[in-house]
Amino acid sequence: MSWADGFIAVDWGTTNRRAYLMDSGGKCSAEFDDGRGILSIARGEFEPAIDEIRERLGNRPLLLAGMVGSNRGWVEAPYVPCPAGVEELARGLVRIGDHVVIVPGVSLSNHRCDVMRGEEVQLVGAVASGEIPADCLVCHPGTHNKWVEVSGGRIATFRTVMTGELFSMLKHRSILSDLLAGRAKDGDSFREGVRKGLSGDGLTAELFETRARFLLGRLGRADGASLVSGLLIGEDVRIGLGTRGALRVIVMGRPQLTALYSAALKVAGVESEQKDGEGAFIAGARNIVERLQ
Amino acid sequence: MSWADGFIAVDWGTTNRRAYLMDSGGKCSAEFDDGRGILSIARGEFEPAIDEIRERLGNRPLLLAGMVGSNRGWVEAPYVPCPAGVEELARGLVRIGDHVVIVPGVSLSNHRCDVMRGEEVQLVGAVASGEIPADCLVCHPGTHNKWVEVSGGRIATFRTVMTGELFSMLKHRSILSDLLAGRAKDGDSFREGVRKGLSGDGLTAELFETRARFLLGRLGRADGASLVSGLLIGEDVRIGLGTRGALRVIVMGRPQLTALYSAALKVAGVESEQKDGEGAFIAGARNIVERLQ
Repeated sequence: MSWADGFIAVDWGTTNRRAYLMDSGGKCSAEFDDGRGILSIARGEFEPAIDEIRERLGNRPLLLAGMVGSNRGWVEAPYVPCPAGVEELARGLVRIGDHVVIVPGVSLSNHRCDVMRGEEVQLVGAVASGEIPADCLVCHPGTHNKWVEVSGGRIATFRTVMTGELFSMLKHRSILSDLLAGRAKDGDSFREGVRKGLSGDGLTAELFETRARFLLGRLGRADGASLVSGLLIGEDVRIGLGTRGALRVIVMGRPQLTALYSAALKVAGVESEQKDGEGAFIAGARNIVERLQ
Repeated sequence: MSWADGFIAVDWGTTNRRAYLMDSGGKCSAEFDDGRGILSIARGEFEPAIDEIRERLGNRPLLLAGMVGSNRGWVEAPYVPCPAGVEELARGLVRIGDHVVIVPGVSLSNHRCDVMRGEEVQLVGAVASGEIPADCLVCHPGTHNKWVEVSGGRIATFRTVMTGELFSMLKHRSILSDLLAGRAKDGDSFREGVRKGLSGDGLTAELFETRARFLLGRLGRADGASLVSGLLIGEDVRIGLGTRGALRVIVMGRPQLTALYSAALKVAGVESEQKDGEGAFIAGARNIVERLQ
């Protein structure tokens, strides 16, 4: 078994995993995703979960990225500090035997602290493949949105915003639940929420006000998810842009989310370009593995 | 059965209820509280739940306040609009037979929408008993904190902040859960959180940063609840004070919460006075019932 003959790259998150079979020419020739995120796997059960990947995609070396390398995952891969590019990630790999490596996360620890796990592979991959320039601001929505300053092709600094997790909690566990059953989409309610979020007037009051408006007949149930999503994403964009002047933002991730962030950035008067994170992950995995050989 | 011979006042919330037996002289002579909030009572089961109160405190007329009058409660008591004082609440009572009344909530519906249910009895009671002046700013912490402008003895306007519910969701259902097991208390971590919340820099990023600091060894587990509580209460105070200049705030509610809000107000440079809400509720119930006779 040699890395040069092809390998499997796994983006292994908290609730899902996606595995890609990379052929010797560096192309993805097969893939699957399932709900076997790290929270579904008990300690001591990671080896069978890895055997299962090889049964589906072939007996190949494995590069594992994401929460699988966290203290809740299989084997902890300590964070590498910013600034971090493909070289730093390759040097920080944790090797398990000759044919399994775990990609480290990236940390920030100066006047602020922050951590990422998983997004770093997409970011260095997007730079390496020329999908994004070596100097840019990237917004990477997800459970925990990341605003990332890429400089000289490396992750220079970043800031995480809990938007996705907060929306999910509000949807499933709060007094707003019955207002949030629908799907958030761009439109008047979303943009109204974005404007309020951008104003910084007070997110935790605006959230309750959506319920008051609904109770008083001033908000339709169908608009609740879009309004609340707009509030949270507006606050998120306010934080991400910070005191920066007008600029261009690259929004990378799943298309449904990148579309909402792109719409919110437009309300803020900022141009954006959407990129799908999947191709970037594959490019990042390939570029890290090249440094193993 | 006559109201003049004494009655039972019930503060019936979402998760708890507290019942007070008021004697003919207007004094509370017996009371109990239990976990029979409205969410624990199925539709059609309110009458037995009321019988139970009378079995414990005596066969007296009943004044019911709080979420029992909401659309998830027993019988809906429509909101009365601001400005609302004891007269407006008494006129808005919903009568069920001769011996049960439900207190209406209070709504705001102008450029903003807001609703309250339960706090209004305490507010008018505190004014009627002279506990608070006829013109003041009241902060009423709880699941949903209320900032209330009292003017001429009536609730003139108010704003709700979801602080308590958000803290509870973060504690029980988020990636921060294992950091929030302790009890929030005033101290360095709490005040640091308050300062960050007051700054308005970005609550939804600061929340995640507490986890990053913990992972990077820069925050002890014992300080997590105080820091996050400080962040949320700091944001809450920022919203409540808004563009008002320095002033004095009355903080009314349960002592553990009023102490934290009072400490946060001090960080903001604002004097405060703490009041226990229970005596105010009893005074409010008595003043509303007097208008029935």
